[in-house]
Amino acid sequence: MNLTFTRTLCALTLGAGMAVALVAQAQSPSAEDQIKFRKAGYSFMSWNMGKIKAQVVDGSVAYDPAQVEAAARAIAGIANSGMGALFGPGTDEDVGDQRTRARPELFQNFPDVATLGNNMNRAADNLLEQAQTGDQAKIRAAFGELGQTCKACHDKYRAR
Amino acid sequence: MNLTFTRTLCALTLGAGMAVALVAQAQSPSAEDQIKFRKAGYSFMSWNMGKIKAQVVDGSVAYDPAQVEAAARAIAGIANSGMGALFGPGTDEDVGDQRTRARPELFQNFPDVATLGNNMNRAADNLLEQAQTGDQAKIRAAFGELGQTCKACHDKYRAR
Repeated sequence: MNLTFTRTLCALTLGAGMAVALVAQAQSPSAEDQIKFRKAGYSFMSWNMGKIKAQVVDGSVAYDPAQVEAAARAIAGIANSGMGALFGPGTDEDVGDQRTRARPELFQNFPDVATLGNNMNRAADNLLEQAQTGDQAKIRAAFGELGQTCKACHDKYRAR
Repeated sequence: MNLTFTRTLCALTLGAGMAVALVAQAQSPSAEDQIKFRKAGYSFMSWNMGKIKAQVVDGSVAYDPAQVEAAARAIAGIANSGMGALFGPGTDEDVGDQRTRARPELFQNFPDVATLGNNMNRAADNLLEQAQTGDQAKIRAAFGELGQTCKACHDKYRAR
């Protein structure tokens, strides 16, 4: 292998590597923003869970089928948006202004986390399906099941 | 009107007033949480707008129809979840740990804000509809239209 060829090969390899890095950069927000966005997603889901709880579980607010369906649609939309991409390298600890309660174990057990995440997504889809029936007993059951999938992950992978 | 009747009427009126207050309390998170939740919703929408932009507008990331549809679904779900409820009394200024960039004018022009909000919701619904076609030109146009509805509100009601 002559020197020119080696240099060209190195340049091409470096170029390809940089291209991959640039694509990765375009795909992934900074570690700080990943933490910000994932917390935003969970936070917005919690607001909508609260509305469904008040209307269908506690009964502290009158049941409004359209509101409950809209809340369930927001939850399902967020859950299924690919939040796994927001647990990238460097997001296992506080970054900049962002604090995370994700435990180190989360980043060491991605297959298990993915299973728990998929359970949440399926439960969120089911809550939306039941919300569309307008049957409060079914919505209540689906809400409870979704809550269990949240808790399953919090218990293992979220700091108290 | 005898005294007993007056007292009873007062008690009933007070009771009804308290009941309304309790329901209002159950419906509305604290002012601090309202700001937190609305910022979370807009933040999570922006992450998903970024993914669609990278794939369909900039082309910096390969187009993945399922990802773009999921992103559009999250945006539409959040937009249509009734975020107007997160601009309640006391949320026109920083509260506790929450900073807001909402300008005072927003809280003095609710009919206009509602119009702008409805424009956003319809544009978000259209983006989801176009995302489901898989036609990148249509998705790009719908993305641009949604972006304009975001900008229309930011220009008038969000501090720089």
